[in-house]
Amino acid sequence: MAEWQEISGGITAPKGYRAVGMTAGLKPSGLPDLALILSDVEAIAAGVFTTSQVRAACVDYCRERLETKASARAILCNAGQANAATGALGLQDALESASALSEALGVPAELILLASTGVIGQRIKLDALKAALPQLVASVSEEGGASAAKAIMTTDLVPKTIALETTLDVRGASQTEARPVRIGGIAKGSGMIHPNMATMLAFVTCDAAVSPHLWQQMLSRAADRSFNQITVDGDTSTNDSLIALANGQSRTPAVTEAGPEADKLEAMLIEVCIHLAKAIARDGEGATCLIEVQVSGTNDDAEARLIARTIAGSSLVKSAIFGRDPNWGRIAGAAGRAGVIFNQDDLQIKLGDFLMMQNGQPQPFDRAAASNYLRQAALGEYLKDDTVAIAVRVGNGSGSGSAWGCDLSYDYVKINAEYTT
Amino acid sequence: MAEWQEISGGITAPKGYRAVGMTAGLKPSGLPDLALILSDVEAIAAGVFTTSQVRAACVDYCRERLETKASARAILCNAGQANAATGALGLQDALESASALSEALGVPAELILLASTGVIGQRIKLDALKAALPQLVASVSEEGGASAAKAIMTTDLVPKTIALETTLDVRGASQTEARPVRIGGIAKGSGMIHPNMATMLAFVTCDAAVSPHLWQQMLSRAADRSFNQITVDGDTSTNDSLIALANGQSRTPAVTEAGPEADKLEAMLIEVCIHLAKAIARDGEGATCLIEVQVSGTNDDAEARLIARTIAGSSLVKSAIFGRDPNWGRIAGAAGRAGVIFNQDDLQIKLGDFLMMQNGQPQPFDRAAASNYLRQAALGEYLKDDTVAIAVRVGNGSGSGSAWGCDLSYDYVKINAEYTT
Repeated sequence: MAEWQEISGGITAPKGYRAVGMTAGLKPSGLPDLALILSDVEAIAAGVFTTSQVRAACVDYCRERLETKASARAILCNAGQANAATGALGLQDALESASALSEALGVPAELILLASTGVIGQRIKLDALKAALPQLVASVSEEGGASAAKAIMTTDLVPKTIALETTLDVRGASQTEARPVRIGGIAKGSGMIHPNMATMLAFVTCDAAVSPHLWQQMLSRAADRSFNQITVDGDTSTNDSLIALANGQSRTPAVTEAGPEADKLEAMLIEVCIHLAKAIARDGEGATCLIEVQVSGTNDDAEARLIARTIAGSSLVKSAIFGRDPNWGRIAGAAGRAGVIFNQDDLQIKLGDFLMMQNGQPQPFDRAAASNYLRQAALGEYLKDDTVAIAVRVGNGSGSGSAWGCDLSYDYVKINAEYTT
Repeated sequence: MAEWQEISGGITAPKGYRAVGMTAGLKPSGLPDLALILSDVEAIAAGVFTTSQVRAACVDYCRERLETKASARAILCNAGQANAATGALGLQDALESASALSEALGVPAELILLASTGVIGQRIKLDALKAALPQLVASVSEEGGASAAKAIMTTDLVPKTIALETTLDVRGASQTEARPVRIGGIAKGSGMIHPNMATMLAFVTCDAAVSPHLWQQMLSRAADRSFNQITVDGDTSTNDSLIALANGQSRTPAVTEAGPEADKLEAMLIEVCIHLAKAIARDGEGATCLIEVQVSGTNDDAEARLIARTIAGSSLVKSAIFGRDPNWGRIAGAAGRAGVIFNQDDLQIKLGDFLMMQNGQPQPFDRAAASNYLRQAALGEYLKDDTVAIAVRVGNGSGSGSAWGCDLSYDYVKINAEYTT
């Protein structure tokens, strides 16, 4: 039972946030390529970043900034140049862009976070970026969520945005009032899915008041259940960043420790992240359907998530689903090699409603009907469900977890091979 | 400097081995599908098997057998049915086929090892197999290596076979004689590369005398440098098995401990395994070239091998090479996410002779020439080198390692998607 409702407005749905996206001339295409997210007041800031040893300058910059002080007023994101593998000069560019925005906004540079996406090995077109800042700052508005969502896109086919609202209790002298709080989010890209086009980026805004440590914990847990559970091609990028702000403008009591209010807020944060993560998987290059894998019966959730991720990331599973082949053997094979110990005699596999393996034994099933189930899952087709559901049980443990991916099609290879130099 | 020479004969090149392959009617295609490798005397036997939790009956059977007693006279391999995910009945079938061969050969069942490859979830066609055994046993010969290599194929385009010869010293009363020892090998398939067609199988014969413990150690180390370093699609199969026999028929002194003779033998064993592993990668589904990745500068060899494997297995690197795009950013990205800690400012990347990154900084290079280098790597084209060489250095450590893979082409998706049910 969801305790929230979807609302419009994306990252500017929460109170006290403004945003904008514009064309600064960073992308050769002339499409929007510079986004600004601004909180009216200093917001608590948390971040989750790529674990790669080869990182963009903005990732090192943000990580260091947030370690020093977990708050921010603004996030500046450019698309076109990833500013990754650019060494000391790239870091210099990052610092300079923060400093220029600081001046344009009249906000200390230490309250500015940065994100980049685009071609690896290319530095930001700093002159174009700087020249665009006055207009960017002048255009930022409470209706700007959608334009920011567009400006962070690279190879994405559709912008990815969501906003949810719930209530937190405000206890007065005589009565308790349920006051709304909101979380909004935008995201782009999925893993490294295009030639050199690095990056999964997601930005989350929240108007609740949360303590910095708790907000970071919530965000890390949410990332583990969402962005860390999607796979398009298994390649983690140099620029992957998830940044979440909480500015307290809902005027609800500060959530500072575990409890029902924290649980409610975290559940909504997880929902926002899962929505964005699924939107990214759906938009995987060449995808014709979304694959949702649910695993249960492990010792803990982490084991279940690992198995789910391995199945969702298996090239064999992905290409079988593209071919609409109910090939349960590949699902069993991927589950078995995930690195989690289980007894194969306990294995159960379901594809949609079709039971394919039970107690480690193949089960008879209607292959034509199962194949038809796969055929009915198609992205972008009216009145069709876009999701192929795989459910795997590996024992009697209480662990469970989900992962999302997409099928592997000719177009994936086409998109990634035909970027000729 | 190689201390060995290539000889003909494959697995029957070493002394005291006979082999044969024949059509038993297990494959629907009518192609050869049953192979027997026989040592004239009881041979020391070592094995390396899939680490998957979902395993074929033959894997559990062999592992248990070798734990009890590390020797064997015969290896029986069927193609057509993987006998994986077949539960207790599958294990029963495995035992029964060993028992039937035992009777036909007059060799104790405990000296028979088994391997299967084919469709997951299908039990062996036991009646057909048993009916074929008399002819199989009658046809086994010292010239049978090539026919055995063919009978273990499933989706392989070419049989994979090799034999090398070196000498070990035999110290007599008055003089030291260099006496020849030989190692032969055959292999099939690569990972799970075809719909349900599980299996990487490799069988190695050697006529040196080696102690069981040392032989197993040598084989495990050789597997780590060869079969464990190839990747076609990252899917480990339910049936992967590498079995190596050493029967002492070279009449050379037993190699029982580390030393120059052991090193010489192990180096040749590694070379046989690398040859077979590369042959498997070359034969990856849809491959148009072999990709060889060499990594150096890590703290140890295991780290280097992990980075090499991650690069060789990256869908983005693989599809860029299929598109003949010298996209070094993807190589950097894959290296960074391998799970090995290094300083990105030390990163060096070479593609063929082209230096693309040095000290973590992009280097200018001739893109047209680099692209042309990739175009010249083409499998099966006369007078062309079939290998794309990627060399990555991540620091100043002494660790190094290689991995092999193939590019990701339209045909991979085609082969794996269009197996309709």
